Amino acid sequence: MKKNVLIIGGGGVAQVVAHKCAQNNDLFGNIHIASRTVAKCDAIVESIKSKGALKIPAEIATHSLDGTDVEATKSLIRAGEIAIVINVGAPFINMSVLQACIETGAAYIDTAIHEDPLKICETPPWYGNYEWQRRELCKEAGITAILGAGFDPGVVNAYAKLAVDDYFDRVDSIDIIDVNAGSHGRYFATNFDPETNFREFTGRVWSWQNREWTKNKMFEIRREWDLPVVGVRPTYLTGHDEIHSLSRNLDVPDIRFWMGFGDHYVNVFTVLNTLGLLSEQPVKTAEGLEVVPLKVVKAILPDPSSLAPDYEGKTCIGDLVKGEKDGKPREVFIYNVADHKEAYEEVGSQGISYTAGVPAAAAAMLIATGEWDVKVMANVEELPPRPFLDLLGRIGLPTRVREGDVDQAL
Amino acid sequence: MKKNVLIIGGGGVAQVVAHKCAQNNDLFGNIHIASRTVAKCDAIVESIKSKGALKIPAEIATHSLDGTDVEATKSLIRAGEIAIVINVGAPFINMSVLQACIETGAAYIDTAIHEDPLKICETPPWYGNYEWQRRELCKEAGITAILGAGFDPGVVNAYAKLAVDDYFDRVDSIDIIDVNAGSHGRYFATNFDPETNFREFTGRVWSWQNREWTKNKMFEIRREWDLPVVGVRPTYLTGHDEIHSLSRNLDVPDIRFWMGFGDHYVNVFTVLNTLGLLSEQPVKTAEGLEVVPLKVVKAILPDPSSLAPDYEGKTCIGDLVKGEKDGKPREVFIYNVADHKEAYEEVGSQGISYTAGVPAAAAAMLIATGEWDVKVMANVEELPPRPFLDLLGRIGLPTRVREGDVDQAL
Repeated sequence: MKKNVLIIGGGGVAQVVAHKCAQNNDLFGNIHIASRTVAKCDAIVESIKSKGALKIPAEIATHSLDGTDVEATKSLIRAGEIAIVINVGAPFINMSVLQACIETGAAYIDTAIHEDPLKICETPPWYGNYEWQRRELCKEAGITAILGAGFDPGVVNAYAKLAVDDYFDRVDSIDIIDVNAGSHGRYFATNFDPETNFREFTGRVWSWQNREWTKNKMFEIRREWDLPVVGVRPTYLTGHDEIHSLSRNLDVPDIRFWMGFGDHYVNVFTVLNTLGLLSEQPVKTAEGLEVVPLKVVKAILPDPSSLAPDYEGKTCIGDLVKGEKDGKPREVFIYNVADHKEAYEEVGSQGISYTAGVPAAAAAMLIATGEWDVKVMANVEELPPRPFLDLLGRIGLPTRVREGDVDQAL
Repeated sequence: MKKNVLIIGGGGVAQVVAHKCAQNNDLFGNIHIASRTVAKCDAIVESIKSKGALKIPAEIATHSLDGTDVEATKSLIRAGEIAIVINVGAPFINMSVLQACIETGAAYIDTAIHEDPLKICETPPWYGNYEWQRRELCKEAGITAILGAGFDPGVVNAYAKLAVDDYFDRVDSIDIIDVNAGSHGRYFATNFDPETNFREFTGRVWSWQNREWTKNKMFEIRREWDLPVVGVRPTYLTGHDEIHSLSRNLDVPDIRFWMGFGDHYVNVFTVLNTLGLLSEQPVKTAEGLEVVPLKVVKAILPDPSSLAPDYEGKTCIGDLVKGEKDGKPREVFIYNVADHKEAYEEVGSQGISYTAGVPAAAAAMLIATGEWDVKVMANVEELPPRPFLDLLGRIGLPTRVREGDVDQAL
């Protein structure tokens, strides 16, 4: 029997996942989409229908669901006979959705690490605080749970594994570089929910250096890279999910993450942050009104979903890997370039959502074919990278490898 | 009988006016201080007592007063047998306090133009919209009403009149330059109430050029000046009160006002303003709370009165006047330099409040001596400048004149 899929989430990434599942639904049974606001799920279904995205006829159902409610999630999984759950909701629901999968036998996929809404930037490794504590439970129950199967984390973990397996005898460093060289034409906007977005940058920055956790401040360390297609771009050392699994699963002394930010973004962020306008702690106005400044900032910034139609330009995300092969130093950059406008035309979302959503759909396809149906919890670098990267090449995110003057498809 | 004085206001400028009236109270009778929050007035009296500021023994009384309430203001004037009212409250109470003076026969002094809280930057000349409409009434009642008797407007108007009378046969241009080269040591703060402060910079900029009103945007026109003591400083063409009377009362084709802003101030202001965080229009948060962004910004910025103890450095404010004398081109810069720390040590306020408050007290002293008790409404340039500038020199704001390589006391 073909496997039914449940997508949890109603934002831009859910839209991409739903479109990609629909485009490849000869591998799946029915598609279900659930989110707190069912109207968002209905809009995704409308978009799929208007683009004629379904490869073969199938049912698509929408549901209202609070992903923190384990019993409600279990009921939905059972009622829909769901075999694969793709969780692309807020980062606060991972643990409850995972629990529902363990108790019902469904496979689980997510694209970002679990977060406690009351804590910003916990101690490393982040997976050890939440997901990995269910590792044994998954093994006992024979549950396939693929953690962090977006682009970063996700595809960049597969790039790292590929480099270690096929390109090097010894890897000395992996620098993951994420540059969005696109433009939304607004003075300032975040690419996803400002509250979630700013949480990434107001805490500590953890990196893995000399086989140790190293702590920095955000925007403390800047480095420019000369990248394919998008050219020379400034980036900053940033804390990010994938370092927390790669540092454990691969034998590499230096693993760092670099996020691209233009000077304008850094300036606006710094002004808001230094003044205290990104604070989650309420302040009182002269008139006695209690207000959380960050919520006011969110209210005056553009709605991220409104950016997609005007988004232009490209993203470039990849792994710069250095080490040794056959006794000689070697350096390769394994990467993908995606285009905002092409993404919008294909699935109605901008490139940031596209690069996060397509890999999650690919992971579901590989569970459906059995290639990644491993019956345990796994981060992406613990799974064979070639089937994943080959599939991504066919469904919209081709991998390229640059080495010296040679730049070619994988 | 010596004239009793009523100071309306409880902020930093009121504190300076009260101290200066106390230091020179051989010219006055009793001193009264009134503001909406009487505790602020009591704190001013405490400060006067702790510094032993009173020159001769006298009563100082405090009162709670809403300056928009004409009847309450008249009652207070009558009860205290007030001869001179010094209005240094919010810019919204000028017209009501002036009305109370006209009806009771008290002399009136203020330091800034009347503003309607619902209007930002009205059409020029600003005095024509409000104060000058009572000019005839003052004349009929024999009321001395001195408008804009702070530093700018105020002292700079006297500098302009002095230049026209004593230094030139023909004046071609007056550039009023206001630079605060002091530092409060905070990341960002306004020197007085953020709401009032930002109102100056979010509207149009009016200047008088080629004998016509000219319109620009704030931060559109930048000019650097090499000033005494504080050196080379960036300034921006800014709309300001004094242009609106000088353009009518003096025969000068170009009158401009330049406010000094560091790049950091301009940057923070631009970010906040462009994002919409300085807006007086309420926005709604995702949770449905209605909030005025400007009031949240005010809540997170430092209280301006908290800056005084740490304020260091100097202000330089003056008139650069160009024209002709005895058939030859002439250029003079008439100016004052004030020191934040000295101001704080003398009267407990920073230099911005000091330069605004001392001239208002001086105007009251000149009314008490009769030199400025003109029994009509007048802007400062309509009054003899020498007694005013001589007195200011004796009580803390000496005038200097720079011409070519010569820089000397007036």
